[in-house]
Amino acid sequence: MQPMPAADVKTLPPAATPAQVRHAARSGAFSDHTSGLADRHVQGNLVVLPAEHAGDFLRFCQRNPKPCPLLAVGEPGQSGLPALGADIDIRSDVPRYRVWRQGELVAEPTDIAGLWRDDFVSFVLGCSFSFEQALLDEGMRLRHIDEGRNVAMFRTSLPTVSAGPFSGPLVVTMRPLKATDAIRAVQITSRYPAVHGAPVHIGDPSLIGIHDLSRPDYGDAVAVHHDELPVFWACGVTPQAALVQARLPLAITHAPGCMLVTDLLNHQLASF
Amino acid sequence: MQPMPAADVKTLPPAATPAQVRHAARSGAFSDHTSGLADRHVQGNLVVLPAEHAGDFLRFCQRNPKPCPLLAVGEPGQSGLPALGADIDIRSDVPRYRVWRQGELVAEPTDIAGLWRDDFVSFVLGCSFSFEQALLDEGMRLRHIDEGRNVAMFRTSLPTVSAGPFSGPLVVTMRPLKATDAIRAVQITSRYPAVHGAPVHIGDPSLIGIHDLSRPDYGDAVAVHHDELPVFWACGVTPQAALVQARLPLAITHAPGCMLVTDLLNHQLASF
Repeated sequence: MQPMPAADVKTLPPAATPAQVRHAARSGAFSDHTSGLADRHVQGNLVVLPAEHAGDFLRFCQRNPKPCPLLAVGEPGQSGLPALGADIDIRSDVPRYRVWRQGELVAEPTDIAGLWRDDFVSFVLGCSFSFEQALLDEGMRLRHIDEGRNVAMFRTSLPTVSAGPFSGPLVVTMRPLKATDAIRAVQITSRYPAVHGAPVHIGDPSLIGIHDLSRPDYGDAVAVHHDELPVFWACGVTPQAALVQARLPLAITHAPGCMLVTDLLNHQLASF
Repeated sequence: MQPMPAADVKTLPPAATPAQVRHAARSGAFSDHTSGLADRHVQGNLVVLPAEHAGDFLRFCQRNPKPCPLLAVGEPGQSGLPALGADIDIRSDVPRYRVWRQGELVAEPTDIAGLWRDDFVSFVLGCSFSFEQALLDEGMRLRHIDEGRNVAMFRTSLPTVSAGPFSGPLVVTMRPLKATDAIRAVQITSRYPAVHGAPVHIGDPSLIGIHDLSRPDYGDAVAVHHDELPVFWACGVTPQAALVQARLPLAITHAPGCMLVTDLLNHQLASF
């Protein structure tokens, strides 16, 4: 399939290919959330750091694989990530970026070509869109999707394992499920260690330092019914929070919800 | 290894082979519980029925695979079960049997050779000893084992799918676990569908009709601590309860805890 002519793109149809989404982002014609686009393909969180901090961040990810599942790491200065898509240009193919200086958000450009340096290292981390698709494929209902909300996210009392300047609490997402669905969700998401894997907690939120499920730290609250358990998964906001907290001179990430769309199929991440 | 001389056997050491346990049972020298014997080998629940009821019972097992995981079914009149051990004689190799007439327990012999008929069909069903071993192998603690008790069992409000005269509630075992162990236990026991597989419920017991965890219907109560979830698995007492309730003219089972010790290794039952 040919890439769509950029001029025609306002919003992209779900049937758009990963390359079409990236090319629309690259041309500047598309700068919106990628949820639901390029059906069944893996979307990733982006972190770009100068090489001097890249080693610390890589160790942080290695030590905290559930919140920080690495899908790819670029060579210093490399703007392509061929493991995730032959033609990816990491400087332009994310619909919207965030630029951080000393831990402060300073810009939300649609392109970072002008900032690019030959010591920049790109990290792409798995995202829960992939395992949510696997749950939906099994006929499971996810309340935040049914209600058109962002998933509820909470900072916990569980610490990450620090590396260099990177540290902080584990951030989790919460999805309410009936017990049989919770058990099935453990089975299904266990197959996807590259996108956060199995839950990290089920049941009483106070055991992991969450005191009010109706007040998430990020995203939107959803109700937990009396016949449901709150089920908690490690969340990709964990490394972003660690990154902000580290107050590096310069860091670049994707803007929330505006992910890198890759050529990998979600099913290719299944471990068995 | 040679079978032990029967005259020497009072209680068997854990290192006894499956054949040694069976031979000691066969000779009458051993008629006790088999828990902990023939380390790492599969132990099974036994049901023996006249052929006229065997078809119904087989359909009951097929329709309720979680409480009734079939490991082997004999031919009518066949006293061997070569799939579970080359030399098994089902008429003598279980340490103690129970004989039921019209649903009433009438005898607990150590041998059923005198009752044997050429229309008898033997069923061997998986037992939770196998998955408990898998949990212990992962370093998990199980409270009823730590406290030297029988596992707590409860009749639930969940119905089985009936077949012929066989019906009744699902019976479950309950083990208290911290959330991270509960998640890991779902992963581990999912690998063992032939020995009840993944849990059927986690959390609030009242959702499955259990109103007091301190009063099990069978076995012994154990405490559930504030930082634990009760985790419920389908239990092999389910088919035994259905069998008693069916009030057949004649049925034979193992006596509780006195299992058929097979030559299969627990690990051989792992599905992946």
